[in-house]
Amino acid sequence: MRKQVKRRSNCPISFAMDTLGDKWSLLIIRDMMFNDKQYYGEFIKSSENISTNILADRLQRLELEGFISKTPDETNLSKYKYSLTGKGVDLLPILLDIISWSAKYDTHTGIEKSFVRRIERDKTTLSKEIIDRLTSKN
Amino acid sequence: MRKQVKRRSNCPISFAMDTLGDKWSLLIIRDMMFNDKQYYGEFIKSSENISTNILADRLQRLELEGFISKTPDETNLSKYKYSLTGKGVDLLPILLDIISWSAKYDTHTGIEKSFVRRIERDKTTLSKEIIDRLTSKN
Repeated sequence: MRKQVKRRSNCPISFAMDTLGDKWSLLIIRDMMFNDKQYYGEFIKSSENISTNILADRLQRLELEGFISKTPDETNLSKYKYSLTGKGVDLLPILLDIISWSAKYDTHTGIEKSFVRRIERDKTTLSKEIIDRLTSKN
Repeated sequence: MRKQVKRRSNCPISFAMDTLGDKWSLLIIRDMMFNDKQYYGEFIKSSENISTNILADRLQRLELEGFISKTPDETNLSKYKYSLTGKGVDLLPILLDIISWSAKYDTHTGIEKSFVRRIERDKTTLSKEIIDRLTSKN
């Protein structure tokens, strides 16, 4: 069985990066948070072309570390449905800040200006809308 | 010469993780942002025990990607002094949110409760203080 990630220090940035410090974990969280994705077959189709072995590894690690949970799909019991836990949903402010930062520094960003404006001017309501949508799905 | 990191998509989360998606880069940024560190010899002493080759690699990459700049040290021209650029300083809201998140979910966190309370209640003033201190140093 897979072991939990090694803890490097008591620093809060280090704690977060122990699990999320790679190129892929936050993209899976993103797909669940903003793109309504719940299934392995949906994550694999994201535009960054994640490989099957990395996706399987990251889903397993994110579950073990309590960011996501999986349950058999109601309509097909051989399929798993993934959902964010409270610990995963609570990454929302971090993700919104990253979007805002990237919109400023990436000249080719694909994010809509109206969404960035909402992060800057109306973060509390925007966050509530996103969380309400997530809650209504699960 | 080192090439710039490969861009995977136009997603803002992916853009940030292209450079910062590893276990060490944000710890170097942290040391510059909160711990007043400016020299290779200071970064190497941080409690996560970064190896010399990873530290050299990440400093080079962070400089190439415009997060930090280096200048010869005034008192010893064979030494380099590292500073955050505007692009690096603008990661502050993300770091503060990560600290707040980790304080909630890490039962062994080393962060002081009073600092977490300031993030939650007084983020704007706290950010200004940190940025003023950084600016006065460079």
